[in-house]
Amino acid sequence: MTDPVELTANLIRCPSVTPVEGGALVLLQRELADAGFECTRVDRGDVSNLFARWGQKGHTRSFGFNGHTDVVPVGDEAAWTTLPFGAEIRDGVMYGRGATDMKSGVAAFVAAAIDFVRDTPPDGAVILTITGDEEGDALDGTVALLDHMDATQERMSECLVGEPTCPNTMGEMIKIGRRGSMTAWFTVTGVQGHSAYPHRAKNPLPAMVRLMDRLASHELDQGSDHFDASTLAVVTIDAGNPATNVIPAQCTGTVNIRFNDLHSGTSLSDWLKSEADAVAEAFGVDIEIRIKISGESFLTPPGPLSDLVAQAVEAETGVCPGLSTTGGTSDARFIKSHCPVVEFGLVGRTMHQVDECVEVAQIQQLKMIYTRILTDYFA
Amino acid sequence: MTDPVELTANLIRCPSVTPVEGGALVLLQRELADAGFECTRVDRGDVSNLFARWGQKGHTRSFGFNGHTDVVPVGDEAAWTTLPFGAEIRDGVMYGRGATDMKSGVAAFVAAAIDFVRDTPPDGAVILTITGDEEGDALDGTVALLDHMDATQERMSECLVGEPTCPNTMGEMIKIGRRGSMTAWFTVTGVQGHSAYPHRAKNPLPAMVRLMDRLASHELDQGSDHFDASTLAVVTIDAGNPATNVIPAQCTGTVNIRFNDLHSGTSLSDWLKSEADAVAEAFGVDIEIRIKISGESFLTPPGPLSDLVAQAVEAETGVCPGLSTTGGTSDARFIKSHCPVVEFGLVGRTMHQVDECVEVAQIQQLKMIYTRILTDYFA
Ligand SMILES: [Zn+2]
Ligand SMILES: [Zn+2]
Repeated sequence: MTDPVELTANLIRCPSVTPVEGGALVLLQRELADAGFECTRVDRGDVSNLFARWGQKGHTRSFGFNGHTDVVPVGDEAAWTTLPFGAEIRDGVMYGRGATDMKSGVAAFVAAAIDFVRDTPPDGAVILTITGDEEGDALDGTVALLDHMDATQERMSECLVGEPTCPNTMGEMIKIGRRGSMTAWFTVTGVQGHSAYPHRAKNPLPAMVRLMDRLASHELDQGSDHFDASTLAVVTIDAGNPATNVIPAQCTGTVNIRFNDLHSGTSLSDWLKSEADAVAEAFGVDIEIRIKISGESFLTPPGPLSDLVAQAVEAETGVCPGLSTTGGTSDARFIKSHCPVVEFGLVGRTMHQVDECVEVAQIQQLKMIYTRILTDYFA
Repeated sequence: MTDPVELTANLIRCPSVTPVEGGALVLLQRELADAGFECTRVDRGDVSNLFARWGQKGHTRSFGFNGHTDVVPVGDEAAWTTLPFGAEIRDGVMYGRGATDMKSGVAAFVAAAIDFVRDTPPDGAVILTITGDEEGDALDGTVALLDHMDATQERMSECLVGEPTCPNTMGEMIKIGRRGSMTAWFTVTGVQGHSAYPHRAKNPLPAMVRLMDRLASHELDQGSDHFDASTLAVVTIDAGNPATNVIPAQCTGTVNIRFNDLHSGTSLSDWLKSEADAVAEAFGVDIEIRIKISGESFLTPPGPLSDLVAQAVEAETGVCPGLSTTGGTSDARFIKSHCPVVEFGLVGRTMHQVDECVEVAQIQQLKMIYTRILTDYFA
């Protein structure tokens, strides 16, 4: 039996802050190769990634797991009550950076996969895609793994991402999609002048506040079948003018939009541009807009894959998980173009925090859930 | 005959950048004392001021002049084509910091006063109040002189401030009042949060943009008999949040109001507070407001004093001056509580700029105007 708790501890002791590999992928590759997995290091830029497959390449039943071994920085090290890379266990709780996000998740699916293929070798393939670049730009991580798979005709027929998905209670939430995310930076340019003679200047700020008021008070939608309502947040406005007798020439403003499947990056970009144009014309100023679409919304509609995961979760925990599309973005946004993808993992409450920690019993429980998923899938 | 051109040049050569006296008031005191003026240095804080009276203290006909010898810094010295404190004359134009604002004005009224009391000693008094703190905070300048006069029962029955008042052509504008000026700083405080979950945060920016939009689009008035319309300029808004996935806890915004005699600092403060309260309640945020009233509006209604000055200007220049209340603030705002006050001086186009300059002929012309004002006043 492969112990996922020991494996989690060993992974935490690898200081793999993005983009440093830190020994984590080397460790996993050795374990997996010993268990008969074909392993390939897929490194790109300064990032390391690991592709591992047990079973026949291109099999129509190729169940995949995805996760990351990189972690965010420890932050205020002095505030930790344990060594951030020490994996100390106190009262049944293991402490360390990556304890929940997500070295425990990786350890659980690696342990489950190794034991499963050894004990009940399936007619099919088990594929593990493990990246060292999820917390960073994520440009050379799961994307590089998927590019490698395309180039080598490797294929997952389904994929489970092992990110922490449960807000408070183990088992309560499976993620079947995520809202899209985009950011728009506006620059309004007028003509500088003296506060005493506003008619001789062209103040960009009234246009900016009108535009931001229009954007912030617009209801994008009221939610859809599987998604919460889309949201728009004005995250900053800045003119940086300390002189009260001066009207500034320019100001900038930024909005961040999280959008559901009723919109696309393009439809929202068009809307933002038309609002900016209308305000620019009304106020006689120039408005420039730069847009970055971090990810479109995506959804794996409730069906065989979410049923499989939900049944395994309920069987092991007694909790009937909800199917959710809440939360920030994840690497599932890349995988959704490859195959159906859902996410299930531990309680994420302490992720990215000081004294990040995980209940040891929950790591064992997670391995059992992943094992049951594999068993049921290949049954 | 006292030459106002030579006196202007000698004053420019005193590097009297606020609050440095630079020798300017010492020079004037010597000239005035020699001409029979009773002189008193009225220094307060780090500022020097000069009070000078010819004639009987407390006479009901005590004509006053006011001006300042301090100047703003030279700015980019390398950009000047002459020495900033050199008073070089090229093609009939004298260059130097203070050439128009307002060492020429001070020189012209000092020269006019000296020659006038010598040639035609009037039945009355001529009073000169000259400050070294107009370009700075102005707390220890003309205010200190007026405090001194109150304490010593000195009194001007009318006062002419010699600031440059003409936008383009010598003689075209007398100022009979000024709009008031005030600044309000708003701080909107909400609750920080993640852009993906705006309902768990309390974003201060939508409240800020709504408030600023309301203030900026409100018409304060359409002007009054002697004043342009009041204006409100949003001069800055700042949140300073570089993280697009974060909703900031706080943002600040500043407005500057120039207001006519239909408002007061108090009435506008009340309006700003009620607008802020309404928005704070609607958005469930906290809005703090700090207000500074730099000066109330004031007006010396058209009458004997403005007639006197206008007739002298027209007789010497052929130009019929307009009576205006435009422009920024000046020390007249303090003097208006003491006696009727108007302002007349040179063309101010180059004030505060690199290569500040004055036509030599206009200094002579200004002395003749001031002389005629004294002659007519005491006739
Ligand atoms: Zn993660
Ligand atoms: Zn001045």
